[in-house]
Amino acid sequence: MSEEGSAKRHGLIIVNTGNGKGKTTAALGTVFRALGQGFKVAMIQFIKGGWRYGELKAAEKFVDFSLEPMGHGFIKLGDGDPVPEDCALAEKTWAKCAEKILSDEYDLVVCDEVNYALSYGLLPVAMVLKTLSRKPQRLHVILTGRNAPEELIEMADMVTEMREIKHPYQKGIKAQRGIEF
Amino acid sequence: MSEEGSAKRHGLIIVNTGNGKGKTTAALGTVFRALGQGFKVAMIQFIKGGWRYGELKAAEKFVDFSLEPMGHGFIKLGDGDPVPEDCALAEKTWAKCAEKILSDEYDLVVCDEVNYALSYGLLPVAMVLKTLSRKPQRLHVILTGRNAPEELIEMADMVTEMREIKHPYQKGIKAQRGIEF
Repeated sequence: MSEEGSAKRHGLIIVNTGNGKGKTTAALGTVFRALGQGFKVAMIQFIKGGWRYGELKAAEKFVDFSLEPMGHGFIKLGDGDPVPEDCALAEKTWAKCAEKILSDEYDLVVCDEVNYALSYGLLPVAMVLKTLSRKPQRLHVILTGRNAPEELIEMADMVTEMREIKHPYQKGIKAQRGIEF
Repeated sequence: MSEEGSAKRHGLIIVNTGNGKGKTTAALGTVFRALGQGFKVAMIQFIKGGWRYGELKAAEKFVDFSLEPMGHGFIKLGDGDPVPEDCALAEKTWAKCAEKILSDEYDLVVCDEVNYALSYGLLPVAMVLKTLSRKPQRLHVILTGRNAPEELIEMADMVTEMREIKHPYQKGIKAQRGIEF
């Protein structure tokens, strides 16, 4: 916890959404910057992938950074209703976020890909809004993922849409180690 | 320099543009991830600000990361033609980028805010394209800043537009330490 200036701090609710690259990556960049400023940071991931190796290794350098990959992928969603197991997992993951958010032990909490869980109906938007409305004043929260719900955008202080203009998949280039994972 | 897989690597030209937050921050996140993967990374900044403290401190943790803040701000551009001194400085800064890009010593080179210099006519687009066309195959290059020129977008493999949907300035909230600097 960094004390200096925290009384006057206006903790922001930040949303990175859109169909392009950079939502999680910009959150990571902010984590990097915040750690450099001596902040205590927690990042909870709603979608887990083995490809998070790069940031896991980099995170080991910082004692004030906890990264919790909670999800199981949520990959095989069809057009039907959400599967109860996935809802339970999403709610469990949000409970972890809420614990960090309300603990008043952190300066920045990142809820990575939570918008994914919200937009697929795995997690009630009201649950997330309620926790955010109770967050400590000084705490910054970043929520990433495409299709951020309107009510969340309404509540947020800063919202950026990452739009895909061009992607290497279009040229048949595979995901590159160190860049995309 | 990371050897493993570098022969097969397809180095990407990545452009982060648009009027929203996250262009430089996503580049920083990629740097963080790349360092975690053992990459050697250079970042050259075309716009300098004292507010880069967060990443400077974080960067000190990594021996394979060099951050070079070269610019002087380019803040006071009016509607007139570019000032010769700024052009000279932009070209000098690009020469530094070109040196890193062509050295074959790096896995990732970030030219931060170079699009700013390009779009204001401080730097000829052709000069940048020529260097990029000669880059080592394995090297990834990220070019950030708003108003990326069309020819650069044409050459790039991955282009993301960061669009501002909502910004805390709109609510009268000042830039927050650890988040925006």
